[in-house]
Amino acid sequence: MGGITQVSSNRVFGGYQKIFSHDSKELGCKMNFAIYLPPASEEKKVPVIYWLSGLTCTEKNFVEKAGAQRYASENGVAIVGPDTSPRGLNIPGEEDGWDFGTGAGFYVDATREPWSKNYRMFSYVTKELPELINENFPVLPNSQSIMGHSMGGHGALICALKNPGQYRSVSAFAPICNPIKCPWGKKAFDGYMGSVDCNKWADWDATELVKKYQGPPLEILIDQGKEDQFLKDLQLLPENFVQACTNSQMPVILHMHEGYDHSYYFIASFIGQHIQHHMRYLAA
Amino acid sequence: MGGITQVSSNRVFGGYQKIFSHDSKELGCKMNFAIYLPPASEEKKVPVIYWLSGLTCTEKNFVEKAGAQRYASENGVAIVGPDTSPRGLNIPGEEDGWDFGTGAGFYVDATREPWSKNYRMFSYVTKELPELINENFPVLPNSQSIMGHSMGGHGALICALKNPGQYRSVSAFAPICNPIKCPWGKKAFDGYMGSVDCNKWADWDATELVKKYQGPPLEILIDQGKEDQFLKDLQLLPENFVQACTNSQMPVILHMHEGYDHSYYFIASFIGQHIQHHMRYLAA
Repeated sequence: MGGITQVSSNRVFGGYQKIFSHDSKELGCKMNFAIYLPPASEEKKVPVIYWLSGLTCTEKNFVEKAGAQRYASENGVAIVGPDTSPRGLNIPGEEDGWDFGTGAGFYVDATREPWSKNYRMFSYVTKELPELINENFPVLPNSQSIMGHSMGGHGALICALKNPGQYRSVSAFAPICNPIKCPWGKKAFDGYMGSVDCNKWADWDATELVKKYQGPPLEILIDQGKEDQFLKDLQLLPENFVQACTNSQMPVILHMHEGYDHSYYFIASFIGQHIQHHMRYLAA
Repeated sequence: MGGITQVSSNRVFGGYQKIFSHDSKELGCKMNFAIYLPPASEEKKVPVIYWLSGLTCTEKNFVEKAGAQRYASENGVAIVGPDTSPRGLNIPGEEDGWDFGTGAGFYVDATREPWSKNYRMFSYVTKELPELINENFPVLPNSQSIMGHSMGGHGALICALKNPGQYRSVSAFAPICNPIKCPWGKKAFDGYMGSVDCNKWADWDATELVKKYQGPPLEILIDQGKEDQFLKDLQLLPENFVQACTNSQMPVILHMHEGYDHSYYFIASFIGQHIQHHMRYLAA
């Protein structure tokens, strides 16, 4: 296989959960990614859903905790999950906080030094990684969707909104919907892009992007727990996104769930419904 | 609630995954245990399945990685999972290896100093813990089953075989079936019981216990991956157990699975079938 090295392979629900590493050109470092290959992929090319994880995660959290393999196996779909930032670059400040730098790439292309050379997670997840996946695995290159959690929910939304037609569908768990208006987003965008031209931040904010989206219709699915501490802390702001969708006549489904928090237990409870949502578009 | 303290509570699949701590009399230390309470338990008492984990695990591995909550929710059954040993006792040697002492209680009652005072996991999981659970949670005290993985599979088998009638059914993933004949078991039994009277070891070995079992019939379900490194290393020896069951006319179902290893991915793939197995007896 071209330029990828297998780190691990475990049989699960009749398919294989694998982790690979490769040297990323966009990020200038070695990166891991996870891929679940369902049994169906042994006989034919299958659709693929990209999963973007949240702050502090690696490629492992989702594959170990979400229980998505069962549904991916049943539906005959691959799931690819990258890491959440470049790693091991020794950039000053990289390890100072859990919400910036390592584990917190925010799926943007940084423009500010010293981050701009390597912190290019947007280009990585929307270009380099799909090319690598399409080249090395039995997936249908024109049948892909995207989903994510928290920072990765923000990532999934902006990847879909900034690349009309690339993803057949998009969904998110407790996404950071309006990063330019919340503490996590302001810190990250200031760090990666600077504050000289704050207007540029809107290019990476789902609530802003949906206002000017021109492309095929996207029925956006969002699940949100009502007992999510970060919802209460005003880090997520789903109401702003839904309002913007309504104003722009973008179809959006927001499910608010009594009692659920921000954890992988919440994701595990609804990941099956998200995969079903994507299959309606991927299998069409 | 009597003598227990809630450590965490997360909503998942409509129920709650909770972790509690309490001061164990059997073990002489503070212990954590996990309990999944399905939605049905909000209205009535439900059956309960005990889960025993393998070497190095805490009460968390199973609840985070096995994906059992979905099936427990659907079937209206609680799942209780203790830790795998006493913790923090500062017994000399306790932390020297990953296969003895902390994280490796082997579900026996130790008889050898310095372990005999605290390493009483058998009494803990078969007496103290069920009493605590029955007292504090909406479970049916006469409707309990037991299952486990690896060291915990051994534990589940001996708990059922040594307590006829206490558990309605028993199952195991890749259990250590014949510990007196494998390196892990010999090391543990020597450590906890000494070698002066090796005949006593047979009282804690499923393959030996099944030979003299007198009690209600147990249809024992075992799943085993063929790519399990510990199967190849002759730590598990399921063939010895099945032979002993056959000789003793004990019903046993051993499924050997192509490609599966010893990991939680293997457990996740078949935990639904194990819960179904137990429900046939618990719901009867």
